[in-house]
Amino acid sequence: MTAVVALGGNALGNSLSEQMAAVKITAASVADLIEDGHKVVICHGNGPQVGMIQNAFADHKRAEPGADTMPLSVCVAMSQGYIGYDLQNALREELLDRGLSVPVDTLLTQVAVDADDPAFALPTKPIGPFMTEDEAKKLAAEKNVTVAEDAGRGWRRVIASPAPKEIIEIATVKTLLDAGQVVIAAGGGGIPVTVGEGHHLKGVSAVIDKDLAAERLAEQIGGDFLIILTAVEKAAINFGKPDEIRLSEMTASKAREYIAQGHFAKGSMLPKVEAAVLFVESAPGRRALITLLEKAKDGLAGKTGTLIVP
Amino acid sequence: MTAVVALGGNALGNSLSEQMAAVKITAASVADLIEDGHKVVICHGNGPQVGMIQNAFADHKRAEPGADTMPLSVCVAMSQGYIGYDLQNALREELLDRGLSVPVDTLLTQVAVDADDPAFALPTKPIGPFMTEDEAKKLAAEKNVTVAEDAGRGWRRVIASPAPKEIIEIATVKTLLDAGQVVIAAGGGGIPVTVGEGHHLKGVSAVIDKDLAAERLAEQIGGDFLIILTAVEKAAINFGKPDEIRLSEMTASKAREYIAQGHFAKGSMLPKVEAAVLFVESAPGRRALITLLEKAKDGLAGKTGTLIVP
Repeated sequence: MTAVVALGGNALGNSLSEQMAAVKITAASVADLIEDGHKVVICHGNGPQVGMIQNAFADHKRAEPGADTMPLSVCVAMSQGYIGYDLQNALREELLDRGLSVPVDTLLTQVAVDADDPAFALPTKPIGPFMTEDEAKKLAAEKNVTVAEDAGRGWRRVIASPAPKEIIEIATVKTLLDAGQVVIAAGGGGIPVTVGEGHHLKGVSAVIDKDLAAERLAEQIGGDFLIILTAVEKAAINFGKPDEIRLSEMTASKAREYIAQGHFAKGSMLPKVEAAVLFVESAPGRRALITLLEKAKDGLAGKTGTLIVP
Repeated sequence: MTAVVALGGNALGNSLSEQMAAVKITAASVADLIEDGHKVVICHGNGPQVGMIQNAFADHKRAEPGADTMPLSVCVAMSQGYIGYDLQNALREELLDRGLSVPVDTLLTQVAVDADDPAFALPTKPIGPFMTEDEAKKLAAEKNVTVAEDAGRGWRRVIASPAPKEIIEIATVKTLLDAGQVVIAAGGGGIPVTVGEGHHLKGVSAVIDKDLAAERLAEQIGGDFLIILTAVEKAAINFGKPDEIRLSEMTASKAREYIAQGHFAKGSMLPKVEAAVLFVESAPGRRALITLLEKAKDGLAGKTGTLIVP
């Protein structure tokens, strides 16, 4: 079975030291799938990381006014190196410790978006560190950026999050997968680019949702399973309320109903369920799983998680 | 023919705007080789870029004392994304404009070094921006770093430059090359790591010379040609003196003589000639070329450059 695994923020942590610890847990969970014989492509988020990289270059420009203003797309490219380095090494080590000699690669990945995607007019994607409401509103006033409350966890800067149309390096992902390698691709949702005049790719100021990018990638490689690993064991309706119901299985059409009823939080569970629905509906035989980072194997075995079926 | 092309600083420039302009010239030169039917792996330096990334995170830490101190190895990983993104797109566009649909990939690449390499005791590799002698000596005194004069071009910070022992992701480079793709690998000489207890790879504070890393990679993939593109058309003895002689061809043993006589500048022409000699001597039939960035094709045709032969 070919699976695309989308990793959330808890798989990577919010700092370099957190990342080095978190990737060990992540590696164990992903290695379980590889040990069971599945082919795996890994996608991951980069919210805190790309925010940190942006902040570093903003501080650099304050210290050296002649320095480049670093475009967000370049920051995403750097975040793929920053995260992929630790993630691939943790997984390489875990696999070798289990006696599995499987190359693990990080591929710089661009994802094409539409220049006229309506998302550019309405920034929704949180990046960078969490702030208090006061800090956020001060930042918004001072720097002419948009801020918003992020799923009950605090305030963050938000930017445009257009829909992924095409993974530019898809031929390479397929080549490596066919060769039996594990590929880390579309990190941070991929470097967002528009296809311009002729064959020119132009970076844009946006971050593509990593769950939707993973879904697009899973479709393009003809994958069987989209596995979204996060900080909750199951998706739920009436989340956080007395009548909360945790879902073990839902059909894509039922999921669409729940989405319409507003059960899933924007920027958090919503893109996960949306990605799952898109994937399940994209071709017969495709399924998706949303579960805890540590429980990928148990989820595939039907022991936990939310399974999304046609 | 399989060629590894090592790109020097002039292929990339010293800032983001310089990079975006320089990679177009670089892309045209590399595309000439691909159009002629050669298989190509591209390696490149990252001196100014990794220095800039380090400076940005140092400024960030001054602004936010709780932020991570960014290890040099992680900065190299980020520089591979920063450079690979522009370089692969320029080459992709150039190839498509010529009607060649060849995937161009950037692969995050680690290079193993010996933990007890004597280079760690004697930093020699320039990174970061050029400074005046006064600025450099002030930096050295304030920050406890080593500085040195760089081949007549100004002063820079210098760090350890251990010898590359093994390209960790070599299987992936081979897979992509066999699939007819163009691979950008070992950017900045590769992320320097030591192989620790068990299967653990540990990043080290060093920058591997990109010409020597390219040489190692060329050996490991069984390449035919090492092409080192730089800012001069030919290597020379008595460089910059009235009796300067520009070399069109030299044997590896003659090159060793010139090296012993001190004809080639450390951190500049010396590692290029050393890499060429190592490659030519590594197996029968292998040759190396040192020439101007723009003249790769002319050099291969024997019209210019310095050819190093057995």
